Amino acid sequence: MSEKIEKNHMDYAHDLDIAIKPETNVPKLDREYGYYIGLGIPLFSIGGGYLRASLYQILTNFHARRGYYIAETPVISSAALFDVSGHLGYYKQNMYVFHLEDRDYAVKPMNCPFHLMIFLNELGKYRNKIQLPFKIFELGRVHRLENSGSVYGLLRARAFTQDDAHIITFEKDAVKVITDVFEEMITIYSNLFRIKVSPETIKIRLSVSDRSKIGTEFMGTLEEWERAEEFLEKAAKKIDEEYGISFIKGIGEAAFYGPKIDVIVKMEDNKEWQLGTIQFDFNLARRFKIYDMVKEVFGDINVYVIHRALLGSIERFLGVYLENYKGRLPFSISPLQFAVLAIKAGDESDSKVEDVAKGLHKELIKNGFRSGYKETSRTSLSGDVRLIETTAKPPIIIYVGKKEVESNMITVSIFYQKRVEKKVELNKINEKIEEIVNDLEKDVISIAGEIPKIPGDLSYLI
Amino acid sequence: MSEKIEKNHMDYAHDLDIAIKPETNVPKLDREYGYYIGLGIPLFSIGGGYLRASLYQILTNFHARRGYYIAETPVISSAALFDVSGHLGYYKQNMYVFHLEDRDYAVKPMNCPFHLMIFLNELGKYRNKIQLPFKIFELGRVHRLENSGSVYGLLRARAFTQDDAHIITFEKDAVKVITDVFEEMITIYSNLFRIKVSPETIKIRLSVSDRSKIGTEFMGTLEEWERAEEFLEKAAKKIDEEYGISFIKGIGEAAFYGPKIDVIVKMEDNKEWQLGTIQFDFNLARRFKIYDMVKEVFGDINVYVIHRALLGSIERFLGVYLENYKGRLPFSISPLQFAVLAIKAGDESDSKVEDVAKGLHKELIKNGFRSGYKETSRTSLSGDVRLIETTAKPPIIIYVGKKEVESNMITVSIFYQKRVEKKVELNKINEKIEEIVNDLEKDVISIAGEIPKIPGDLSYLI
Repeated sequence: MSEKIEKNHMDYAHDLDIAIKPETNVPKLDREYGYYIGLGIPLFSIGGGYLRASLYQILTNFHARRGYYIAETPVISSAALFDVSGHLGYYKQNMYVFHLEDRDYAVKPMNCPFHLMIFLNELGKYRNKIQLPFKIFELGRVHRLENSGSVYGLLRARAFTQDDAHIITFEKDAVKVITDVFEEMITIYSNLFRIKVSPETIKIRLSVSDRSKIGTEFMGTLEEWERAEEFLEKAAKKIDEEYGISFIKGIGEAAFYGPKIDVIVKMEDNKEWQLGTIQFDFNLARRFKIYDMVKEVFGDINVYVIHRALLGSIERFLGVYLENYKGRLPFSISPLQFAVLAIKAGDESDSKVEDVAKGLHKELIKNGFRSGYKETSRTSLSGDVRLIETTAKPPIIIYVGKKEVESNMITVSIFYQKRVEKKVELNKINEKIEEIVNDLEKDVISIAGEIPKIPGDLSYLI
Repeated sequence: MSEKIEKNHMDYAHDLDIAIKPETNVPKLDREYGYYIGLGIPLFSIGGGYLRASLYQILTNFHARRGYYIAETPVISSAALFDVSGHLGYYKQNMYVFHLEDRDYAVKPMNCPFHLMIFLNELGKYRNKIQLPFKIFELGRVHRLENSGSVYGLLRARAFTQDDAHIITFEKDAVKVITDVFEEMITIYSNLFRIKVSPETIKIRLSVSDRSKIGTEFMGTLEEWERAEEFLEKAAKKIDEEYGISFIKGIGEAAFYGPKIDVIVKMEDNKEWQLGTIQFDFNLARRFKIYDMVKEVFGDINVYVIHRALLGSIERFLGVYLENYKGRLPFSISPLQFAVLAIKAGDESDSKVEDVAKGLHKELIKNGFRSGYKETSRTSLSGDVRLIETTAKPPIIIYVGKKEVESNMITVSIFYQKRVEKKVELNKINEKIEEIVNDLEKDVISIAGEIPKIPGDLSYLI
């Protein structure tokens, strides 16, 4: 049976108990759940809460370690801000805007205006003590009024979370800024999500202006575009040299506000997904008077405002990922990390088996992990495991039976691409599990310093 | 000079560079900053971003360790959900509600409807595998249209973040649930924020119904109120026994939806602030059919729906705290944690002094801390320190001068109630600083497992 054909990302989310499917599970309110929450606004369930909180901690710590400042900005503001940014002019049809009391409000469709306000505030207050590149990161919750026909589960939601950053950089550092961001992308793809990074799986598209349309379709000056495109192309060439990943150039495919690089990842199902993006923005730089303010502080020197995202929308990325990895999540962000099974033999060994298994389960939670405890029997074991492996999919399963208790050797089954079993001495099990986890997640620890410790007893999931 | 009288919480926030004051610092947009963001919607600056992210990690990990599930729910939903909850009936004047395309939307003023939807979903899916008390926690961003005249900085904002949880509990566990929440409150106040917890500083107000008005002003049945009030009073008496903190009973002061306990904290300025709350809610329990669903799964057994918050609004709490502690924040959530000062003597020792100080600063960042580096001289030192102590207020200041370099003993000044200086051997400084931090924050580590490691170079702050 091909699981791939039969299930979509929302089925996997449902199996893992990450997100609530609109048509199910809230049966007592007489009307349909989706109706209450709103079209395209996903409600994450308990598992999803742990996943999100863990992912936030990893991405926050990772970005802080890479020199990004960490921000959290408003969801709703006066519409005036989006008038300054120009969004009300060219993006209003996709925005939640409304009038209340005596003013117009806008729900942010993007984080940029806030990040630029913060930059301006810091520059106004600290002047030339501010160092460029100034990099500001936010897991920003944005809302876009996508066409109702195209809303689809996590893949196209109206409320989603961007792993968003803005970088204000002097021109001289632009190439390094771009190649650094590319490095961040492939680091997150490979170290955190274990996506294979190679010239076969990663494509780069460099979208530039049609020079004949500068001033009409593309805003800004010819010189501005030429220079920025030169930096992007230099960076793309450097990436090619270093990683052997060549780029495709799309003439006339730039955004109206600036040229960009998009990074496309070919997933296991051979479908291509645009994930990362690096975009110059001449529009916001002008509208927020970044040029003027920088000039006032640093003198006559060129700067660029760059947007970037590594995953794009967290929700969409998860949707893609769940489908490609059949609901298998990396240990650090997996809702259920451990399943501890007490396999009863129906004899006097049972109480010892229970004690040991329960003790392990409790110790795991105490040590900051999410664990589930389940009692089973020799005859039910394979059925129970099959169920666990198709629903909660914990990366680690611990088996405690009569044999294990008598020999003081516990069976630990670790999933990484496939399942591998290890025997671990019972009296050293806590330190051994710490070792196993540190080994399993060494690539995450190397980029985030540590893995999140957000424990929970999730026995009800299995 | 009494700093207390001269400064309010926004001045302190501004000194610390946590939140942007409406009237300042974004000078280049011609119009006033507050106008853009919107009345009562605070914009946190770089320092505030670190503070929030650190506080989130601590509160998330703390609650997870206390058996709360972690959630993150939508900010905007179909208004229909708040019709079910009754908010549109009795709270609409404080809500951001709007109509778009063909439906009504509401910005959530509270997190309860979402938490109850999640509970119902889990109960519908996992039935009696769900364990009660079912506790669900969220740092929930809510919006309330407070009267424009009463909006005031962080103390009364229209957009704020609740440290919010809902607990669904069997009646038999109600007293323990309440006393556990009280324990959580005083743990956060004392371990994280070092607020003195004693019968002199903590008051408990038990707000009950006026029995003659049940059915009119107070919704629900007489029996329901009697029982719930009995549990609250039992819990209040237990708290009195254990902590010597007695309670005041306010007859007729309950919410219309149920009785409650409020916890009032007397701060250093002798003003009293209501921070924690534990509230029964008969209204939502009925409207979301929690009673029916629990009955269907567990049989005819009484349950209660309880709201609780420890700090209430994070923003308001920070406002109160900043004013009371003159902008001194605990190390773990302090934007700037370390200031490293290179004190130059104007002779050949300067380059060594610089190297050592810079090296320390970089190592701190590498080890997950937020540090600022500044070069000064013997004559400027006292002025620079005075400035640092009135603005960024880092808990730890490291002095590196000629004397320190020659003797290989670095001066580390640690703020905890007052400043204490320690001499630390240069060749062991990284491990010694780890020890100092672990000692300084041992009470935080004991409740959250670890302190957040969200590093940053914040030299521009000093």
